[in-house]
Amino acid sequence: MKALVYHGPGQKSLDDCPKPEIIDIGNAIVRITHTTICGTDLHILKGDVPTCTPGRILGHEGVGIVETVGSGVASFRPGDHVLISCITACGRCDYCRRGMYSHCTTGGWILGNMIDGTQAEYVRIPHADTSLYPIPSGADEEALVMLSDILPTGFECGVLNGKVQPGASVAIVGSGPIGLAALLTAQFYSPAEIIMIDLDHNRLAIAQRFGATHIVNSATEDAVAAVQAVTAERGADTVIEAVGVPASFELCQDLVAPGGVIANIGVHGHKADLHLEKLWSHNIAITTRLVDTVTTPMLMKTVMAKKLDPESLITHRFKLDAVMDAYDVFGRAAETQALKVVIST
Amino acid sequence: MKALVYHGPGQKSLDDCPKPEIIDIGNAIVRITHTTICGTDLHILKGDVPTCTPGRILGHEGVGIVETVGSGVASFRPGDHVLISCITACGRCDYCRRGMYSHCTTGGWILGNMIDGTQAEYVRIPHADTSLYPIPSGADEEALVMLSDILPTGFECGVLNGKVQPGASVAIVGSGPIGLAALLTAQFYSPAEIIMIDLDHNRLAIAQRFGATHIVNSATEDAVAAVQAVTAERGADTVIEAVGVPASFELCQDLVAPGGVIANIGVHGHKADLHLEKLWSHNIAITTRLVDTVTTPMLMKTVMAKKLDPESLITHRFKLDAVMDAYDVFGRAAETQALKVVIST
Repeated sequence: MKALVYHGPGQKSLDDCPKPEIIDIGNAIVRITHTTICGTDLHILKGDVPTCTPGRILGHEGVGIVETVGSGVASFRPGDHVLISCITACGRCDYCRRGMYSHCTTGGWILGNMIDGTQAEYVRIPHADTSLYPIPSGADEEALVMLSDILPTGFECGVLNGKVQPGASVAIVGSGPIGLAALLTAQFYSPAEIIMIDLDHNRLAIAQRFGATHIVNSATEDAVAAVQAVTAERGADTVIEAVGVPASFELCQDLVAPGGVIANIGVHGHKADLHLEKLWSHNIAITTRLVDTVTTPMLMKTVMAKKLDPESLITHRFKLDAVMDAYDVFGRAAETQALKVVIST
Repeated sequence: MKALVYHGPGQKSLDDCPKPEIIDIGNAIVRITHTTICGTDLHILKGDVPTCTPGRILGHEGVGIVETVGSGVASFRPGDHVLISCITACGRCDYCRRGMYSHCTTGGWILGNMIDGTQAEYVRIPHADTSLYPIPSGADEEALVMLSDILPTGFECGVLNGKVQPGASVAIVGSGPIGLAALLTAQFYSPAEIIMIDLDHNRLAIAQRFGATHIVNSATEDAVAAVQAVTAERGADTVIEAVGVPASFELCQDLVAPGGVIANIGVHGHKADLHLEKLWSHNIAITTRLVDTVTTPMLMKTVMAKKLDPESLITHRFKLDAVMDAYDVFGRAAETQALKVVIST
């Protein structure tokens, strides 16, 4: 089968690979119909993810059709249309029992990282009963690829951890795909203001179209002053970090209101300064989270009820044969204005 | 009247001062029977609290008897025995309506800071209806001074923010009075382990007597290895920071389990490193809080029901005439083994 293979920092190719096989009773083999590229895949290609070794098929998002299942799989049968979660979960370990699937002792984020992933014609899914979701009939299956990772990540790590409330003020630092996923799902809770902050004019224009009440270009405007002005000098009740560098996290500390939350989504490679000399008395919380995908069924219902439009995040479409072009377009997002690119078989 | 007056960094004296008077309809004048010294008073004397200016009577803890009340006070009458909260709250502003009394727009921590405090024969209490608590008959009034600040601080900022749960593992960094207050109140929730970490042998011995299941002297032992050993290599579900320096906060980051909370109590004068490159995916929360004293009535009930013994924190007793000696003993706590010193009129 065809698959996009990581060959070490800076190196990847579309290769012919063996089709995966059932190796445990809980496995399913899924024929991929649609997949996508995540910012994390670019991190892998920079060599930033040491758990991902050369020879690995990348990709942790996708929808498809079940081809075969192991004898221990109870919930899925060949022919079922399924959404693949970026998080593999056994459903049995202590972490899974608490709903913290991201830290499953035999799962977590392993697809396209410690085991072969979804940028391929077929993928093997361990713990299939608790790592796949049935797709309702009538769904736009291509758009549901956005429910594998980016929408639950924006929602769980940003909106839920950030405790977005009706009437509250929300600031989102970073208007890339993940910041936009937080923006879309924050609106479930009717905040009074959602202030998007970014350095890129195009991304801010998209944010405005997606429902931001205010946009701030921090390349030319003082983001702290702008948020203070919008919030009657209090700061934002929820601040969502959707970039992943020290400067953006440090900006969040200047934006949060007393009693507020800084919800980190960003994948960080470096430590940041925490200004405890100011924040110790501000009654704030800072949260971090690798998405647990506990909200995938909830988000599926919001999509079916047309409360959430995942298709709006898709800017480019490719066939798997052109996956190298898809990486090129996604990797030059500032020029190409790519948000999410869908790759179909 | 006699009062302990701050005269600028390093300078204080027991002075003759005018007796306070009612200046607003919501005021009460309270005759102090017992007060104490807080670590924060030592911070003021170092010059670390710029809002506290020379000439200020110090002290934000105390019990006493109402002497007079303004015409707007509904809940208290002369002769009532009252507990004074370290937090003054109007009960009316947006923050107060949310129970975040610490950030009351005309109150918060003002006693012995922005207005004259309790280390005196009399004190004026603004917003008396919502800043005083009635003392039940039969209470040990001296011991209730511990409910003005230290016990609600350890409980709210440490135990409640830290979400201490039955069966959980708790690590407390700092076994001074505030760490011990957290230790005492953490036991309400029946955690499996409470591991106390400090550099001082005497304080750790007290912690063991107060219910710590494990003690770790980080001067001679590896605290991270000790906590890992106790928690089956997971880390602590709740880590309470009760020191207030960068090194202790940074240690907390090495102790917290995935899914856990670092609850900061310490008053910090400097920024600290936040290791987001490790913690971004650990599903943790970090909380900060200036005590709101929302739990004072709850703690009063635990004292009356003998579930909490505030008297155990008192090591030394002085008359107000000897308040300078009290500061000396409290300021040399490592030598004198002082925890809380009570000053009575």
